[in-house]
Amino acid sequence: MLPILLSFLLLLFPSSLLADDFCVADLAGPTTPSGYTCKKPSSVTVKDFVFSGLGVPGNTSNIIKAAVTPAFVGQFPGVNGLGISAARLDLAVGGVVPLHTHPAASEFLVVTQGCILAGFISTSNDVYYTTLKKGESMLFPQGLLHFQVNAGGVTAVAVVSFSSPNPGLQITAFALFANSLPSALVEKVSFLDDAQVKKLKKVLGGSG
Amino acid sequence: MLPILLSFLLLLFPSSLLADDFCVADLAGPTTPSGYTCKKPSSVTVKDFVFSGLGVPGNTSNIIKAAVTPAFVGQFPGVNGLGISAARLDLAVGGVVPLHTHPAASEFLVVTQGCILAGFISTSNDVYYTTLKKGESMLFPQGLLHFQVNAGGVTAVAVVSFSSPNPGLQITAFALFANSLPSALVEKVSFLDDAQVKKLKKVLGGSG
Amino acid sequence: MLPILLSFLLLLFPSSLLADDFCVADLAGPTTPSGYTCKKPSSVTVKDFVFSGLGVPGNTSNIIKAAVTPAFVGQFPGVNGLGISAARLDLAVGGVVPLHTHPAASEFLVVTQGCILAGFISTSNDVYYTTLKKGESMLFPQGLLHFQVNAGGVTAVAVVSFSSPNPGLQITAFALFANSLPSALVEKVSFLDDAQVKKLKKVLGGSG
Amino acid sequence: MLPILLSFLLLLFPSSLLADDFCVADLAGPTTPSGYTCKKPSSVTVKDFVFSGLGVPGNTSNIIKAAVTPAFVGQFPGVNGLGISAARLDLAVGGVVPLHTHPAASEFLVVTQGCILAGFISTSNDVYYTTLKKGESMLFPQGLLHFQVNAGGVTAVAVVSFSSPNPGLQITAFALFANSLPSALVEKVSFLDDAQVKKLKKVLGGSG
Amino acid sequence: MLPILLSFLLLLFPSSLLADDFCVADLAGPTTPSGYTCKKPSSVTVKDFVFSGLGVPGNTSNIIKAAVTPAFVGQFPGVNGLGISAARLDLAVGGVVPLHTHPAASEFLVVTQGCILAGFISTSNDVYYTTLKKGESMLFPQGLLHFQVNAGGVTAVAVVSFSSPNPGLQITAFALFANSLPSALVEKVSFLDDAQVKKLKKVLGGSG
Amino acid sequence: MLPILLSFLLLLFPSSLLADDFCVADLAGPTTPSGYTCKKPSSVTVKDFVFSGLGVPGNTSNIIKAAVTPAFVGQFPGVNGLGISAARLDLAVGGVVPLHTHPAASEFLVVTQGCILAGFISTSNDVYYTTLKKGESMLFPQGLLHFQVNAGGVTAVAVVSFSSPNPGLQITAFALFANSLPSALVEKVSFLDDAQVKKLKKVLGGSG
Repeated sequence: MLPILLSFLLLLFPSSLLADDFCVADLAGPTTPSGYTCKKPSSVTVKDFVFSGLGVPGNTSNIIKAAVTPAFVGQFPGVNGLGISAARLDLAVGGVVPLHTHPAASEFLVVTQGCILAGFISTSNDVYYTTLKKGESMLFPQGLLHFQVNAGGVTAVAVVSFSSPNPGLQITAFALFANSLPSALVEKVSFLDDAQVKKLKKVLGGSG
Repeated sequence: MLPILLSFLLLLFPSSLLADDFCVADLAGPTTPSGYTCKKPSSVTVKDFVFSGLGVPGNTSNIIKAAVTPAFVGQFPGVNGLGISAARLDLAVGGVVPLHTHPAASEFLVVTQGCILAGFISTSNDVYYTTLKKGESMLFPQGLLHFQVNAGGVTAVAVVSFSSPNPGLQITAFALFANSLPSALVEKVSFLDDAQVKKLKKVLGGSG
Repeated sequence: MLPILLSFLLLLFPSSLLADDFCVADLAGPTTPSGYTCKKPSSVTVKDFVFSGLGVPGNTSNIIKAAVTPAFVGQFPGVNGLGISAARLDLAVGGVVPLHTHPAASEFLVVTQGCILAGFISTSNDVYYTTLKKGESMLFPQGLLHFQVNAGGVTAVAVVSFSSPNPGLQITAFALFANSLPSALVEKVSFLDDAQVKKLKKVLGGSG
Repeated sequence: MLPILLSFLLLLFPSSLLADDFCVADLAGPTTPSGYTCKKPSSVTVKDFVFSGLGVPGNTSNIIKAAVTPAFVGQFPGVNGLGISAARLDLAVGGVVPLHTHPAASEFLVVTQGCILAGFISTSNDVYYTTLKKGESMLFPQGLLHFQVNAGGVTAVAVVSFSSPNPGLQITAFALFANSLPSALVEKVSFLDDAQVKKLKKVLGGSG
Repeated sequence: MLPILLSFLLLLFPSSLLADDFCVADLAGPTTPSGYTCKKPSSVTVKDFVFSGLGVPGNTSNIIKAAVTPAFVGQFPGVNGLGISAARLDLAVGGVVPLHTHPAASEFLVVTQGCILAGFISTSNDVYYTTLKKGESMLFPQGLLHFQVNAGGVTAVAVVSFSSPNPGLQITAFALFANSLPSALVEKVSFLDDAQVKKLKKVLGGSG
Repeated sequence: MLPILLSFLLLLFPSSLLADDFCVADLAGPTTPSGYTCKKPSSVTVKDFVFSGLGVPGNTSNIIKAAVTPAFVGQFPGVNGLGISAARLDLAVGGVVPLHTHPAASEFLVVTQGCILAGFISTSNDVYYTTLKKGESMLFPQGLLHFQVNAGGVTAVAVVSFSSPNPGLQITAFALFANSLPSALVEKVSFLDDAQVKKLKKVLGGSG
C-alpha cells in the first residue's frame, strides 16, 4: 500500500506546484513591481521565516531619542510577497518619531511598554490623535501624515505592523531639509521663512 | 490674505474628496467582496482608530489553555479596507493553538512574553518549525496549516498581525469534529478510524 | 432569420451580465473600500462619461496664485471603479502648488502651456526635479512628496492624471498649520521653531 | 470539558469573523466596483454554491447554430467575489461563436465533445489558432479578440471558465451592427463599405 | 496607400507594446510574487496556449482510487499571469479526494461523468455538502477545507477550474502524517490519539 | 548633534528600504506578470521620470489621417509599476482612430485642440457617443470597443491617459484584415461578405 500512496503523493506534488506557497526574497536578484524574485525553494529553511531584530531595544541615543527597527523585506526577506511586515519602535523619555508617511502601507501600532501620544492628519486636515497606554492599539491609514511621541516617564516601546512587505518611510523634515533641494525652493513650497529653512538644513545635514 | 487662502482650501478639499482616506466599517450595513460599507466620515472620531483589547490577557481556563483575542474588522471596524488586522495570543503553560489556517491572510507573529514552539507545513508537506523566544518573530504564509504551542514554563504571549482586515480562522479539528458532518464521511476524507472520529466528535460537540 | 438572432442576443445578454462594464458612482449611496456603489445601468447616459471642468481656467487669484480643478470621483462620478482620474492645474506667474502627496495614486503630469519647475523627493531623501516646457511630461510616484512651481513669465497649465478615481491630496503646510493640532506638538514633530509655527498657523487659519 | 470547549469555540468564532469566507451576491442589492453586496450569511445554504445549468444543452436552433450558457454572477450568485465563473458552449454542426472579447477576464476552454477550431488575435495582430479535439484545452488572454467554430461532423461542447465572476462578453458584429450607431460612422471607424454595413444592420436588427 | 498604412501599423505597434497581452511562463527563469518571468514573445506559438492533459483519464489504481491531473502553471506555462488554471479529477468507484485546501484560489467544479458527493466547511464550522450529478457544478471558496467522494457506481470525472495560475493543494492527512513532524507534536495540535497518529504516519510514509 | 542625526538617518534608510518608491523598467531585462524588472535605483535620475514625446505632433500623413504617440512602458520606462500611462492623439481634418480596445486599461481623454466625435459600445450593445469640444473629457471603460473621429475643421489633439503602464491597443480592422487569418474563417466569425474581406485584406496588408 505504501509505495502506491507515495507515488500518488509524488504525482500530486510535482515541484512546480510549490512556487506560490511563499517567495523568500533573493535580495541579490532583480526587483519587480510585485517585489523581489524568489530564492530557490530548495534552499529555503525555517530560518528564512524567523527574525530576531524586534526583540532588541533600538539605540535611542540620538537627537530624537527614538529608534525604528524595521523588519521590512530588506531586513527580513521572508515577508516578500506576503503583504505584511513589521517594525519595533523605541521612544526614550522625550523621544519623538517626527511627522512621516508610509507611501505604500497602512500601519497597526500596539504599545507594549509605556505611553505614546500618537496621531494622524487626514486629507481634509482633520487631526486624529490620542494618548495610548500599554496594550492599546492605533491605526494609521496608508499615505497619511502621522507621528508618535513618548507621553510618559519611561521608555515606550511599540510593535507596529504594515500592510506591505515594503511600506516605505518618508520623514517630512528629512525630505525638506536633509538634501540639496535649494533653500529658496523649499521656502516657496513650504511657506517657511528663510532663516528657519537654513537653520534646519544645517541641523539635518542638507545643503543648498 | 487669510480669507482668500481659506476659500482656496475649501476649493481644494470638497467633502467628496475625502472618501478614500479610510473606510471605518459600518457593521450594520451591507458587506461587499472588498469589505464592509463605510461609516459616514463626519461621524468618525479618533476612537474609531483605537482598540484596547490587545492589552487584556485572554482567558486560558479552557481545555487548550489558550486564548485568541482578535482585532479583526468585526471587533475593530477601523481596519476595514486597510489591508491589515491583528490579534493577541495567550498560551498558558501547556497551552496549544491547534492546527489551523487563515484562508485570507498571511501572519506575522511577535513573541512578547515566554517561549513558543511554532510551525507551518507547506503544500509539499515540508515542515518549518522552531522554538521562538521573547522578541523573536515568525511568518506563516497565507492559507498554510500552522500551529503554536507554549514551549516554556510561563504563560506565553504574542502579538500577531495579518495581511487582511478579515483573515478568517479555520481550526482543522473543529472543522472535522465540531459539526454534523457524518462520521462515515469524516473517516473517508481524513483516513481516521471510526473510534477516533466518534471520540473527538463527542469531545468537540459534533453530532452525526 | 432576424427574430432568431434577436432572441439569441437576448439570451446572450441578460441584464445581469452588464454590471461590470462600468460603475458610475451613486454619490448619495454608501461607499466601500473599492469605491462608491453604482448608479443603476438603466439611468446611465453618455453624460455620465463626459466632464467639462478641465477646460475652464481655475481661479488663481489667491495667495499661492494656483488652482487645482479636480475630476476625481466626487466631481466626475464616471471614474468610479475605473482606476483613473484627472485634474487641471493652473499656475499664474509666481504660482506654486505647495509640497503635497497623493496617498492613493501615482501622477502623470503633461504641461499644456507655459513652463513648470516640478519635483519629488524619494524615501531616501533624494530629490528629482527639473523644469518642464510645454509638451513635456513628468511622473510623481504614489505617496511621495512633490511640488510644482511656475517657472516662466506666463500662466502655466497642465493636465494631470492619476492611477486612482480618488487619489487624495494632502498639502503638508495645511496638514501642519491649518487645524487645531497644538503648536507645541507641531514643533516637536516638525523640528520647527515656535515663532514659525505660530506665524503659519495664523496665516493658514489654524488654532492651538 | 465539553462546555468549556464550546464556549472557547464561541469565543473564537464570533459571527463577525465569518464575512469573508464567501459573499453570495444579493442581486437585488446595490453593486460596487468589487461586485454585488453579499446575502446575509445566515440565509446562505449549499444551494447557493450549486448550479445545474451547465449540464443542459443550449438551444442551437439559431442563425449561428451556437449557444452560450453562462454561469456568471447574474445566473450563479455564488461566484460573487470568488474571482471565477464558467459557461457551457454548444456548437451544432456548422456552428460559430463569432469574434468577441471578454473585457474583464481570461478564458480557459476545455472541449468535452466534438472538435473546435479556436483562435485569438494579439495586439500585434498575430493570430494563434488551432483545432482542438475532445479533451484538449485552450487559453484566451483577457480582452483579446477570439472565436470558436465547430470543426467536426457532430455537435461540439466545451466547458469554459473565466478569471472573473463577471467576465463580460462583447461580440464585435453585434457591437457594430445591432444598435443605432449611424451607418456612416460605422463605416468610418471600421473601413467597411456602406452596402456591407447596411446589410448587416438589417440582419442583426440595427438601425441608423 | 498600402505602404503608408503598413508603416502606420508599425508605428502603432512597436514590439515593446506587446508585453502585456500574455506572459507564458519561462519555468527555467526566476519566479516573483506575481508569477514566473515571461518567455520572449517572439518564441511563443499557439502550442503555448494548448494543453492536452485534461483529456487523459488519470490513473486511479491507488489507495484513494482517485487522480488529480493539474493544468497549473507548472504543467501549463501559458496560464502564468492570467488568473486562472484548471485540473481534471478522476474518481473510481469508492474513490476519494481527501480533505484539502487550495491556499491561493477558489474552485469551480463541473461534473462531466458520474456522481460526486462534495462539500466544504466554513470558518464557522458550518458544512455545505451535497451530491452532484453529471452536469452539475459546485463552488469551493478560497482556502476552505473541502472534499470530493465518488457517490455512484461508475467512475466519476470532473473538470475543475481555479482563480489562480497556481492554486496550491494541501491535503490535510498528508500535511499531518506524510512528513517528519514528531508524533507528539501532531497529537498535541490535532487532538488525535497516539496510536492513530502512528498508524497513519506509517501508512502515509511519515517518520517521527 | 549633526553626526548623531546623520547616523540616525543612515540607520533609518538602509538602501534596501528604497525599492518600492518606484520601479523604472529595465527594458532589456525579463518581464513578469506585474511588469518589467526595475533599473538599479542608483542609476535612476530625474530623466527617467520625464518624457518629451507628447509635445510633438504626430505624423497624420497616412490613410486614417491620425497618429497615436504612446507614452506606455515601452516608450517611457518610468511608468512601470505605477499603474498609469498616457498618449497623444492627433487627428487631422477627416482623421479617424478606428474602432479599437485597450485590453488592459480604462482611458481618460482630454481634448486640448479642435473637436472630436468619440464613443464606446457596452457589452449590451448600447452606444455612448458625443461630440467633445476643446477642454472636454470622456471616459472609455476597460476592454470596450471605442473610436475617435475629428469632428471639426481643424486638426484635433487630445491627451489620453490609461489606468495601466501597458494598456495594449487592438484595432479591430487590423486584427481582422492585417494578418494571415484565412478569409473564409474571417467571414465565418465576422458575418462579412467574401468580397469585403478580400478587399480589406488587400488594403491592410493581410494575406490568406
